[in-house]
Amino acid sequence: MKNKKYIIGADIGATFVKIGAVDKSGKVIRRSSFSTGDFPSKKEFIKALSDCISIIIKSLGVPKSRITGLGIGVPGTVDYKNGIVHGLTNIKGWKEVPLRKILQGIFKFPVCIDNDANAFAKGELTWGSARNTRNAICVTLGSGVGGGIIINGELYRGSNYAAGEIGHMCIDLKGQKCACGNTGCLETFVGNAYIVKRAVNLIKKGAKTSLKSAAAGDLSRITPQMITEAAVKNDKFSVKIWEETGVYLAIGLSGAVNMINPEKIIIAGGISKAGKFIFAPLKKELKKRAMKTHLKVLKVMRAELADDAGIIGAASLII
Amino acid sequence: MKNKKYIIGADIGATFVKIGAVDKSGKVIRRSSFSTGDFPSKKEFIKALSDCISIIIKSLGVPKSRITGLGIGVPGTVDYKNGIVHGLTNIKGWKEVPLRKILQGIFKFPVCIDNDANAFAKGELTWGSARNTRNAICVTLGSGVGGGIIINGELYRGSNYAAGEIGHMCIDLKGQKCACGNTGCLETFVGNAYIVKRAVNLIKKGAKTSLKSAAAGDLSRITPQMITEAAVKNDKFSVKIWEETGVYLAIGLSGAVNMINPEKIIIAGGISKAGKFIFAPLKKELKKRAMKTHLKVLKVMRAELADDAGIIGAASLII
Repeated sequence: MKNKKYIIGADIGATFVKIGAVDKSGKVIRRSSFSTGDFPSKKEFIKALSDCISIIIKSLGVPKSRITGLGIGVPGTVDYKNGIVHGLTNIKGWKEVPLRKILQGIFKFPVCIDNDANAFAKGELTWGSARNTRNAICVTLGSGVGGGIIINGELYRGSNYAAGEIGHMCIDLKGQKCACGNTGCLETFVGNAYIVKRAVNLIKKGAKTSLKSAAAGDLSRITPQMITEAAVKNDKFSVKIWEETGVYLAIGLSGAVNMINPEKIIIAGGISKAGKFIFAPLKKELKKRAMKTHLKVLKVMRAELADDAGIIGAASLII
Repeated sequence: MKNKKYIIGADIGATFVKIGAVDKSGKVIRRSSFSTGDFPSKKEFIKALSDCISIIIKSLGVPKSRITGLGIGVPGTVDYKNGIVHGLTNIKGWKEVPLRKILQGIFKFPVCIDNDANAFAKGELTWGSARNTRNAICVTLGSGVGGGIIINGELYRGSNYAAGEIGHMCIDLKGQKCACGNTGCLETFVGNAYIVKRAVNLIKKGAKTSLKSAAAGDLSRITPQMITEAAVKNDKFSVKIWEETGVYLAIGLSGAVNMINPEKIIIAGGISKAGKFIFAPLKKELKKRAMKTHLKVLKVMRAELADDAGIIGAASLII
């Protein structure tokens, strides 16, 4: 145990920053978190981040030489090679921030920064469902629909580190406008807000569902989690919402599968918690839509790293 | 010149088989061809193929030791590793044919077999527009819409050699049935037959165009080439057909770009001859639909290897 090494992983989210110390086996053995929005400036945010990292390191009670490095996952676009954050989604004021340089200046050990979907995919590749996998598509389902692509056993980042935007494939050329500028993107069908909006619109049109009373009449309170809870209790409307969502997801992923020909699709994120309600229709529809040769090698599964996936994925960037 | 080496390339198409000897610089210096459909059985077809290869080799007047190998591109699915043709599109009777074993038995030099879209991409990577390119999407536009993906400077084949099926990404979830089993695939918008069908339907509905007289009243005679010729002569209807085709192509390719983040999209095949009529709307629409970060590094271009692309691509498989 004396020479045990640790990696620090920091998952910067729109709501929380989660930080942890991860051991060689990918287990989080120290953790801490704070609210992302609590700071008047980016400078003070970075100060809080580095203070929190220092506290975690101290709590390990080991010399700094036993910290292999710091990996950071951010919700935005990154110049991976130079450790610069181009910008963050839902966190203002971040533009071309040389975060690696700043933090390496403080800690003196290697720092690696990537977007959160890539960090998640790298985490699954290192310690999760994508271990020993040559080619895989990793998908995160949340307010956004992100992705990380594993090619030849390595995370594939693309020509300027922006590959894997699975949520922004058009599946409906007459579809609605997406925040990315395109129309009919997969995200406009399976992103959290869009799922809820679809449910609310149907309820307003008179659909019968227990969600109405669950939301105490205030439809703006409906969340994906409530739809899952209602589905578990046999609310047919909610089951149907997840069924449709699974079908939409299959429409997008069939294109990705036909192009990438992976062994695995690995799915994580909030709405993956809808479990069988989304996975069963997803698998059924994929069988209809993906090409036969591609289906021969394909498996669809949930991500292995659960609640700690953010911290673990960030830490894996250092591997 | 004494020690010059040559590769034999054979491009098996649905209509013609084209065979050539290719030198180190990717130039075809001997060539031959025959009709694909002229043979009563697969066995006789393979006999003709090997005879034709033998004639080419003899015509070079060099010892067999100077033939590096034989590369073959086929219009179908292939077990690349084991040199087995699973099946061919539009050529009947081919099922799990161990073509490499058969031809290696005859010629004793290395034989490599891949599908024609991969051969095209490898050809562009070795001697064409994709030289010195890390990541690229190569697209062939014809009766089918094929693709080959270059990742980290190498042709990427996928988990069972079926990657790159760019034509079979769904861009219209309510679209028409595709031959692959999916609906609304890119191919159902930009495949030759679909383009012509769209034009014919519009003409039947009363659209004004010079195509009608060009086809001497028989609309079934309309071809993509005729639409290009009419567009060159300022037929507004034909210009519009290519414009729409370019837009559809951009809708599909924007998704591929957002996922792969390549430096280049390289386009070949019959309808790429529509030149600016398809490339101008394609580029314009891609700028609207692909993500800004991805557009920073992206170039769209025609394939460099023209009429000999099939032979050269097949030969490049040996490199």
